[in-house]
Amino acid sequence: MKNTAILLIDCPDRKGIVAAVADFLYGHNANILHADQHQDAERGLFLMRVEWDLGDFGLGTADFGHAFQSIAETFHMRWRLELSAERPKVAVYVSHYDHCLADLLYRHESAELVCDIPCIISNHPDAARLAEFHRIPFHHIPVTTDKAEAERRQLSLLRDNGVGLMVLARYMQILSPDFVTQFPYRIINVHHSFLPAFSGGRPYHRAFERGVKLIGATSHYATDTLDEGPIIEQDVVRISHRDQLDDLIQKGRDLEKVVLSRAVRWHIEHRILVYANKTVVFD
Amino acid sequence: MKNTAILLIDCPDRKGIVAAVADFLYGHNANILHADQHQDAERGLFLMRVEWDLGDFGLGTADFGHAFQSIAETFHMRWRLELSAERPKVAVYVSHYDHCLADLLYRHESAELVCDIPCIISNHPDAARLAEFHRIPFHHIPVTTDKAEAERRQLSLLRDNGVGLMVLARYMQILSPDFVTQFPYRIINVHHSFLPAFSGGRPYHRAFERGVKLIGATSHYATDTLDEGPIIEQDVVRISHRDQLDDLIQKGRDLEKVVLSRAVRWHIEHRILVYANKTVVFD
Amino acid sequence: MKNTAILLIDCPDRKGIVAAVADFLYGHNANILHADQHQDAERGLFLMRVEWDLGDFGLGTADFGHAFQSIAETFHMRWRLELSAERPKVAVYVSHYDHCLADLLYRHESAELVCDIPCIISNHPDAARLAEFHRIPFHHIPVTTDKAEAERRQLSLLRDNGVGLMVLARYMQILSPDFVTQFPYRIINVHHSFLPAFSGGRPYHRAFERGVKLIGATSHYATDTLDEGPIIEQDVVRISHRDQLDDLIQKGRDLEKVVLSRAVRWHIEHRILVYANKTVVFD
Amino acid sequence: MKNTAILLIDCPDRKGIVAAVADFLYGHNANILHADQHQDAERGLFLMRVEWDLGDFGLGTADFGHAFQSIAETFHMRWRLELSAERPKVAVYVSHYDHCLADLLYRHESAELVCDIPCIISNHPDAARLAEFHRIPFHHIPVTTDKAEAERRQLSLLRDNGVGLMVLARYMQILSPDFVTQFPYRIINVHHSFLPAFSGGRPYHRAFERGVKLIGATSHYATDTLDEGPIIEQDVVRISHRDQLDDLIQKGRDLEKVVLSRAVRWHIEHRILVYANKTVVFD
Repeated sequence: MKNTAILLIDCPDRKGIVAAVADFLYGHNANILHADQHQDAERGLFLMRVEWDLGDFGLGTADFGHAFQSIAETFHMRWRLELSAERPKVAVYVSHYDHCLADLLYRHESAELVCDIPCIISNHPDAARLAEFHRIPFHHIPVTTDKAEAERRQLSLLRDNGVGLMVLARYMQILSPDFVTQFPYRIINVHHSFLPAFSGGRPYHRAFERGVKLIGATSHYATDTLDEGPIIEQDVVRISHRDQLDDLIQKGRDLEKVVLSRAVRWHIEHRILVYANKTVVFD
Repeated sequence: MKNTAILLIDCPDRKGIVAAVADFLYGHNANILHADQHQDAERGLFLMRVEWDLGDFGLGTADFGHAFQSIAETFHMRWRLELSAERPKVAVYVSHYDHCLADLLYRHESAELVCDIPCIISNHPDAARLAEFHRIPFHHIPVTTDKAEAERRQLSLLRDNGVGLMVLARYMQILSPDFVTQFPYRIINVHHSFLPAFSGGRPYHRAFERGVKLIGATSHYATDTLDEGPIIEQDVVRISHRDQLDDLIQKGRDLEKVVLSRAVRWHIEHRILVYANKTVVFD
Repeated sequence: MKNTAILLIDCPDRKGIVAAVADFLYGHNANILHADQHQDAERGLFLMRVEWDLGDFGLGTADFGHAFQSIAETFHMRWRLELSAERPKVAVYVSHYDHCLADLLYRHESAELVCDIPCIISNHPDAARLAEFHRIPFHHIPVTTDKAEAERRQLSLLRDNGVGLMVLARYMQILSPDFVTQFPYRIINVHHSFLPAFSGGRPYHRAFERGVKLIGATSHYATDTLDEGPIIEQDVVRISHRDQLDDLIQKGRDLEKVVLSRAVRWHIEHRILVYANKTVVFD
Repeated sequence: MKNTAILLIDCPDRKGIVAAVADFLYGHNANILHADQHQDAERGLFLMRVEWDLGDFGLGTADFGHAFQSIAETFHMRWRLELSAERPKVAVYVSHYDHCLADLLYRHESAELVCDIPCIISNHPDAARLAEFHRIPFHHIPVTTDKAEAERRQLSLLRDNGVGLMVLARYMQILSPDFVTQFPYRIINVHHSFLPAFSGGRPYHRAFERGVKLIGATSHYATDTLDEGPIIEQDVVRISHRDQLDDLIQKGRDLEKVVLSRAVRWHIEHRILVYANKTVVFD
């Protein structure tokens, strides 16, 4: 069981940022385990992720903000501190297709995804048995013409469970822009195509029709503009004329599982920073 | 040096096609080396490629059409016979970027691409030295406001050299629809993106802007609708936030070489059949 | 639900094989759905897989052998007929690591693997709950010093259930040569490395130690020579110095699932022919 | 034209290294462009690469060593300073197969490989024309029974040209251990297989014989133990039963080009650190 702190920073790039942060951490006796940084020269932006062991660290997490304040102000930083001991609380949304859900639950159980999953939400009852097998509460919230009512019920569940991340595991309902904007970079979706190709519905049908030689899948943060949020991960698989539509769909399922689970993992390990509608993934 | 014949067939699917073709070839003592077929159940279409050694074959190629006529009519076949001894004549078009040209010429010289290249056509003079090194006639045909004049000069060159395939190796001029329709499935283009994503110009810039995690390249037959012709081959390479625009362009170059040279090879080996704006590649 | 027959043939290569088989099938009114063939010129070998719809077929499967006999004898064929309606019976072996088992059971349930799984056999009790969830009988057969006794119990189970394929889904016990030789090309194993690199035990440790930049996994038929049987499928994933041993193991798990499930699928769809310790996969 | 300095460090891991280095650089007004680090927890090792713009840097490169000495001693660092303005001098060795040489020379000419290539050395005369096209001196040094004599001539050439890196671009002669040990991590070789599989000679033949489903290539530093040096890069390509030995060799050529050119690029950009017979590539 890791006991580490992760500091995520973005700020305008200028000299001395690394020195200031490194000095500060060293001054409080941090044992740095990982540090990664990225500079966007064009935009003059500096991004950093640093993780250290809390064993010898001389500063309580409650006091961190106060102690770090002057550095943060000097460099005009946006920053946040995450603790590996605080397991993220993740709600998984699912509809009829449950392959991504099954994959996530297996990875959760085998400790590849270190998080809590306090609830599974679905507009279909189908996944109840799978949820039960993994001993996770399942909530069937049908989405009728009154979508707002369903979202109210969801919000209440999310709040009650302290959910910090929603994963749309092939959830086939479109969340309202109002709902989505309440959770910036807190909703991960998997789109079953290689975005921006075939954005929108029925991508495998359209890929088959177009005669592409590779199909792909994309995981991204949901924003109010459908399929336009920051891309987290993508992968592809080769197909040929021998593959019929069903083969595309089946091969696609494996892709969807992989790109979604990677995105979830990177998010809950606090490896993702977003700027300019793009992600930086410190893997 | 191979001495084989290749028969390419497409026709409505029905029982007995394979038996009829196999009987015919066996009856003339063909030693079949490769046979591949594909059925599109949805469209009720049958496609076949069969290659045999001409050593023992009891039928002159001049007589083939006459002898095969009744089978072809019975099954309403479109067919053609190709001979490996007749090396395809390929014209390569290039502009400023010469990495695809250099790659094709190297593969040609090392006998990976078994064809003749009677001419290289460019709207820039830059590639002359490279052409000379490979001892291939180079024709600098500038494209001014009078595009028609340039195409007339190209057509004359293509005709004089008996060219059967044009390869647009990052040729940056748009050929007129009139020109393109004269050469159905005889012009291979490489598009420096993973079509249909980022069709049109400056795809690497747009891919970088969009923050994709893979970039791709596509080779396809040119049609009068730009970037919409049948896709022959595609491939991708992984990128990350560490890759700047220049890195995308450079990684893309390697992709372009690979997807273009594969397409050219499959074409000159008569492995590609086209239907419904898609390709079947019997590899 | 498909109702097709699959004919698999290997024989010395000579003229007329395709014509004879195609004529035979056409003569009995077969509607051929897929046909694929391969010739090994060096060894003078011909291999074929042909699948047809049994709807209009004019020959009972019981009569097939008699009717086909003269062709088979003429060409010295080894052949077998498989029926898609006869679902293969598959026993899955597992030990402590259950990711491959979970993956296979999910694919089975979602009809990607069209077979029956009458039993799961394990030397550990751990997977019982997973088996129960998928409603498949679970047999805990500990392997003590008396390995022969365990194999006797396994054989009895396999016989009682009419098992035609055993899948070693990270089964960590070594089957005796006597046992293995009773099931030629009927046991599929997954080796957690890119064979022939790192054959034997602890491949991830050794790959990590050696500093390779890709790790792989291999599915193969088990033979009495450990890790030397015909390879069915392989795949790799990229790693870097940032990946620690645990990361290799975890990334490897995903590979193992993929290469094992593909091999199982191809086997139960009768797509694999073996010769010269190699596989031909008609995919 | 970049004007940067690159500092490469490895030392025992302990607290305060990053702070010390960052303070030092900041104190001399360095504008850090890239910084990457790696810790090997098991071995207690810290490795770092930091690159900064020399524009504002307040320390002459001649004075760097003196100024940095106390930090280096405090942390028991091994370190070196590289300057992007000092283009590495690379000698390329080649024999009969020239695809890797042609690829390297093209990348050199297109400024993807920023280095000088003062000489090409070959035991065959074949590549002379290619060298001449790229205006690089070509030295035909036959290797007879007196290998020592050939190596003496090579050493003299390398010395006269101030060569810092030798690239064995499918050079088919084995360099003597004496020769190799004079250039630790200064000789990059490409092995035409996925090491450690098929180390030694004729790997494609052996891969074909074994029936593998992927073939690979490996670039690595040469050491006195053949094929056992630190691996820099590896890649693979999928093959099937349809690929004959010639196809493996041809597909392998593309792999060899890619893995060799990547390794050369990373080396001349000072991105590679070696420890425990492994490489850390700060890409």
